Amino acid sequence: MVTTLQRPALVEGLQQRRQHLARLFSQPVVIWSGQAPSRNFPANTYPFRANSHFLYFAGRPLAHAAVHLHQGTMTLFWDEPTADDALWHGPQPSRADLATTMGADAAYPMADLPQYLQQAVCLPAQQPIWQSFSDSSMQPHEASQALAAAIVQLRLNHDAFGLAQIQAAAKVSVAAHKTGMAATLAASTEAEVRAAMEQVIMAHQMTCAYNSIVTVHGEVLHNEQYHHPLEPQDLLLADVGAEAASGWASDITRTWPVSGRFTSPQRDIYDVVLAAHDAAIAEARPGAEYIDLHLLASTVLATGLVDLGILRGDPETLVERDAHALFFPHGVGHLLGLDVHDMEDLGDLAGYAPGRTRSNRFGLAFLRLDRPLQAGMVVTIEPGFYQVPGILAPARASGEYDDAVNWDQLDQFSAVRGIRIEDDVHITESGCQVLTQELPSTPDAVEQLVLQG
Amino acid sequence: MVTTLQRPALVEGLQQRRQHLARLFSQPVVIWSGQAPSRNFPANTYPFRANSHFLYFAGRPLAHAAVHLHQGTMTLFWDEPTADDALWHGPQPSRADLATTMGADAAYPMADLPQYLQQAVCLPAQQPIWQSFSDSSMQPHEASQALAAAIVQLRLNHDAFGLAQIQAAAKVSVAAHKTGMAATLAASTEAEVRAAMEQVIMAHQMTCAYNSIVTVHGEVLHNEQYHHPLEPQDLLLADVGAEAASGWASDITRTWPVSGRFTSPQRDIYDVVLAAHDAAIAEARPGAEYIDLHLLASTVLATGLVDLGILRGDPETLVERDAHALFFPHGVGHLLGLDVHDMEDLGDLAGYAPGRTRSNRFGLAFLRLDRPLQAGMVVTIEPGFYQVPGILAPARASGEYDDAVNWDQLDQFSAVRGIRIEDDVHITESGCQVLTQELPSTPDAVEQLVLQG
Repeated sequence: MVTTLQRPALVEGLQQRRQHLARLFSQPVVIWSGQAPSRNFPANTYPFRANSHFLYFAGRPLAHAAVHLHQGTMTLFWDEPTADDALWHGPQPSRADLATTMGADAAYPMADLPQYLQQAVCLPAQQPIWQSFSDSSMQPHEASQALAAAIVQLRLNHDAFGLAQIQAAAKVSVAAHKTGMAATLAASTEAEVRAAMEQVIMAHQMTCAYNSIVTVHGEVLHNEQYHHPLEPQDLLLADVGAEAASGWASDITRTWPVSGRFTSPQRDIYDVVLAAHDAAIAEARPGAEYIDLHLLASTVLATGLVDLGILRGDPETLVERDAHALFFPHGVGHLLGLDVHDMEDLGDLAGYAPGRTRSNRFGLAFLRLDRPLQAGMVVTIEPGFYQVPGILAPARASGEYDDAVNWDQLDQFSAVRGIRIEDDVHITESGCQVLTQELPSTPDAVEQLVLQG
Repeated sequence: MVTTLQRPALVEGLQQRRQHLARLFSQPVVIWSGQAPSRNFPANTYPFRANSHFLYFAGRPLAHAAVHLHQGTMTLFWDEPTADDALWHGPQPSRADLATTMGADAAYPMADLPQYLQQAVCLPAQQPIWQSFSDSSMQPHEASQALAAAIVQLRLNHDAFGLAQIQAAAKVSVAAHKTGMAATLAASTEAEVRAAMEQVIMAHQMTCAYNSIVTVHGEVLHNEQYHHPLEPQDLLLADVGAEAASGWASDITRTWPVSGRFTSPQRDIYDVVLAAHDAAIAEARPGAEYIDLHLLASTVLATGLVDLGILRGDPETLVERDAHALFFPHGVGHLLGLDVHDMEDLGDLAGYAPGRTRSNRFGLAFLRLDRPLQAGMVVTIEPGFYQVPGILAPARASGEYDDAVNWDQLDQFSAVRGIRIEDDVHITESGCQVLTQELPSTPDAVEQLVLQG
């Protein structure tokens, strides 16, 4: 998972995380690593992915293990493999060796865990698991929520080890996107481009942080089908990100012309999305409100669409009435870390600052992050333009936006179904650093990468 | 999933399966399709894989759907996507359209299902699901077991549609293995060869039927790590199989020299494994006992190892005392169908004929299939030779096999850690057809494929 050279640094880094948690939360904590779910029958499992909180404090993707964290110490619970396990899965380290590589203070079999559970606090989603594992009653729900809040506070700002892992994942994602662009001219389906991109991720001993989107129907926001043929007039939207073996994620979207040349309407809209993307990143710095980056990107998008004659009116007023959201119905991005939507297993606890909740406004309801940015955070910036029939057809029929949208002019851009441009942005003390900057986003550079294939 | 041209044939084939079930089982049946498990947080799921029994009768991988089967009719239960679903996942067919494409007789929302559950029988593994879904008590465990037995009887022998899907998957697996061989000379890690192979599967719009094994440590039978460097003296064992979008599986293993040239000891052992493989396939026909193929392969293996001076004594006697199993500790294969170990969700009900149970003998305990072969079955044939330290070191230390094993001679083959050769075999009326025969298995042909890279 990590090279030998990194291991001492990792152990020290893990110990610092545990000590940091102890300063924020004084009660004992138990976190379970999870198990690989079955794919139709027990011997055929999905690839195991450990719980991210477990990975954050324990550092190794052990299946069916638990850690007990208290006052900066860690006790590992894990059952050593049986002789049968060794036959089928190869030699594995002993519990004692594992404990050493993780910097654990003690290590016991899972059967010893129940006696620790009674005094321990667990994560909200893991309460039912522990209740089934042990008869002992655990600490109440309020303590569980307080634990979650403490972990959010800790995981919002990445330490050097976490950041290095995101960078490593981002580097592989960049390579995957370049390969995908270069593979497009010779490909005849979405599936072939996806395969070329994921091959790069696999060859680097990483996994996909989420199910790839590689589609000529970018207007379907979470499209996970890859069967469409590639037509020369299509734009191909690829949202593909590598996850390091340590679990840390990256997340990149690019949109490129299948032919290697943007048509004029495609380039017009692409430039508008790129301007929104660049404007939001330019304002990303400590203290900036992420929702303001979202609104800035929305306003830049609206301005561009006014310039193209698609929208009519004052851009800020258009954004206030959600006219931009007809074309950009999602948020400008989210937290990135050990999860691609970092800590979303805790609901909006990580994404929304205390006291803030999601807006009911169409243009804000899908925003996953509403916090002031802080140095050490990593967020995505990913504005887009989509022509979603399920949004535009009712809006057009209703007449509600007739003063704001020039529907006839929009028809000139009917071949531009979906564009998104997404990068991973690390908030630094002085501003920000785009971790995925090695991947060009200008239309000329994107064309060049496609045509080089 | 299937092309338009195939669809009418599929609907008819599905109806035949339901009518066939009705002849074997008279009570109403409910089967749930399952849901994609979460990968750490709800919005990030593993790729959905529908329950295989559902796929067998319903033909489409719908998530969180159920079918009610009775007297040859099928009622579909499925909730139509919400407007939000359409935004994120694209337009989807209506319930009525789906019902038509599946040949269902009626279709209702999931909320209507509980009233059908009370009279229905479900699969053994789905009993807890239905109990949580509905307060109504279902038919008892005995009926559930009888249903499982009826489905086993039905699914053991593949119809033309199922067979065509296995063939389609096998064809892609063959291409993946050829690509893997050709990619080896230029690769520096197991991961790169795995990536080249899985790229082929993905590009063909298929998935992997199981987690790939691509390893220079073939002696670890279910090795799912890919980080080892490739050294010129290594053998690379690749157990990689495609699964069609319809869910039907294939399963191929080949072992090839990283350098493109087998060393003399490698070729000697490879030839022995290949002889065992060929001998078992030569005897595969209706009426043959699968366990006899296993014992035949074991005896041929033992004979070859005697010829090489590794084993001593009469091959049949060696097999009787499990001396061959020191090197070949698993079964010669398994059923293949909608699952790579077909119907293993039902335990040994499919693999073992009524009244038969697993042996305690070391050389037979891991055999997954003990039935007389019938026309229409598809099975794998996959003998191997492994030097598993966890088996050989204790055996050598115990002295128990000193008369049967020439340990000094075995040391001459220490670099041959793991070899397996696996093909998919369709039992026909007159004998058998190797569905994966387009992929060569002779050492010369394998060398040629590697060197062509």
